Amino acid sequence: MTETYVHGYHARENERLQDQAGTLVELLHSDTEYPRGSRVLEAGCGVGAQTITLARRSPHAHFTSIDVSAGSLAEAEQRIERAGFTNVEFRQADIFSLPFEAESFDHVFVCFVLEHLARPVQALQILERLLRPGGTITVIEGDHGSTCFHPDSPAAHAAIECQVALQREAGGNALIGRQLYPLMVEAGFDAVRVSPRMVYADASRPHMVDGFTRKTFTAMIEGVRESAIAAGLIARDSFDAGIRDLHRTTQRDGVFCYTFFKGIGKKPQRPIPGFHPGYETCVHL
Amino acid sequence: MTETYVHGYHARENERLQDQAGTLVELLHSDTEYPRGSRVLEAGCGVGAQTITLARRSPHAHFTSIDVSAGSLAEAEQRIERAGFTNVEFRQADIFSLPFEAESFDHVFVCFVLEHLARPVQALQILERLLRPGGTITVIEGDHGSTCFHPDSPAAHAAIECQVALQREAGGNALIGRQLYPLMVEAGFDAVRVSPRMVYADASRPHMVDGFTRKTFTAMIEGVRESAIAAGLIARDSFDAGIRDLHRTTQRDGVFCYTFFKGIGKKPQRPIPGFHPGYETCVHL
Repeated sequence: MTETYVHGYHARENERLQDQAGTLVELLHSDTEYPRGSRVLEAGCGVGAQTITLARRSPHAHFTSIDVSAGSLAEAEQRIERAGFTNVEFRQADIFSLPFEAESFDHVFVCFVLEHLARPVQALQILERLLRPGGTITVIEGDHGSTCFHPDSPAAHAAIECQVALQREAGGNALIGRQLYPLMVEAGFDAVRVSPRMVYADASRPHMVDGFTRKTFTAMIEGVRESAIAAGLIARDSFDAGIRDLHRTTQRDGVFCYTFFKGIGKKPQRPIPGFHPGYETCVHL
Repeated sequence: MTETYVHGYHARENERLQDQAGTLVELLHSDTEYPRGSRVLEAGCGVGAQTITLARRSPHAHFTSIDVSAGSLAEAEQRIERAGFTNVEFRQADIFSLPFEAESFDHVFVCFVLEHLARPVQALQILERLLRPGGTITVIEGDHGSTCFHPDSPAAHAAIECQVALQREAGGNALIGRQLYPLMVEAGFDAVRVSPRMVYADASRPHMVDGFTRKTFTAMIEGVRESAIAAGLIARDSFDAGIRDLHRTTQRDGVFCYTFFKGIGKKPQRPIPGFHPGYETCVHL
């Protein structure tokens, strides 16, 4: 992974990722469970926000969780140890040069990673090679263009647009969620099925308002304040007005919506040796 | 209902509404079912696109379906008769002057109606009066600001914006879906619970691509072409480019998302006569 990680590697950012995972576990992961004995590669585990949910939900699967950042890996490892899980092995590795043999995993899990890569299809193809035929890949990504809130605010949209622009400049794509289907099909996966997972937060769901609108999404946008101003993308006052308006959506009459996309695809089965349907058709016509 | 109905009353529009209902039935209505013998008011039934689903899913409830348009009502009545349902009574009436006694219904159902009203909270309050204490209201509305697609296209967003602007000029609000929670709370309903219902269409879901992206959403936007151009909102070429780009999302690698919001609320129970908790607290302190 040669791209700059737009969110940074600070302690506060780690907290944000943990908050995000805690609030979203049901919505994103309740239908992910791996069978006893299966070998699962988690590509880009970061600080382990998702790893802990994977390990808990599939206690008899064996996980190999990789990340390019040694600091994040250390954090993830500590977290998994503290929780008492022994079914996760961590390795430092770049997604574009992975130290694994072809077909050495039954399943691959990728969450909030493709958004940071300039070549997402190539990454998916590398991961496909590591899967056994018939193995599955699960990909989860957000999409900042799906953001929808009340009261609506052009200033808030402008602040969000700063994050999208910075991520684009770093080689990533904060609008990648909606593209999962074509990207996974292009990478060669079969039976691709994408489902949207919308976070919906109003005053009747205070955990979502606090955990997602405030501590996850708005905190993430706030996190690019200095870079956005330094890059000349926005004036300080305009950015701050946007953040104020995002916080405004957490009041009693506010509403905030954001959509994640989850895609599952299968590595095609190997063709039966010696069987060439196209050739046979030619012969018999 | 004194506002202009932005979608018009043409035969082709009726077809669109039927297509929309057919494709969306599961997503929007699978959790709406009324008990035997309950009295349900459907406020704004239009051409009966939803009425038929209500009647089918709750065959032992009694529906009273009203609409301001005699033409739409005739169409709805014919449709229900053809389908053989006898549990629906139709009446022509304006939602702001309904010919019913207070507390004469157990449930109220309102679908794609508030978006056309300049005073949605007042309409909800009128409907609340018709409910018995403890009765429920179900409200379903779309939100054009939730539209999200691939390939993304400023031209397509500009064409959609024409529909939003025309609806606003007619006194309505095409972005009302996200506001259901605060509107229903403001109208006085208790225990309001809103859930988003996203239509997600990619090539793996050809019925959604055809039934929703093409025949419902894009057809609806195409339907305002002449009015938008006549109103000077957009140049002919720009509008047509937007429509082309909406159709582009129906190709093999395209994706289209749109979110409806469904809210359910309860009319508060009557306070127990003679019981004044606030007063008692004062006395005993």
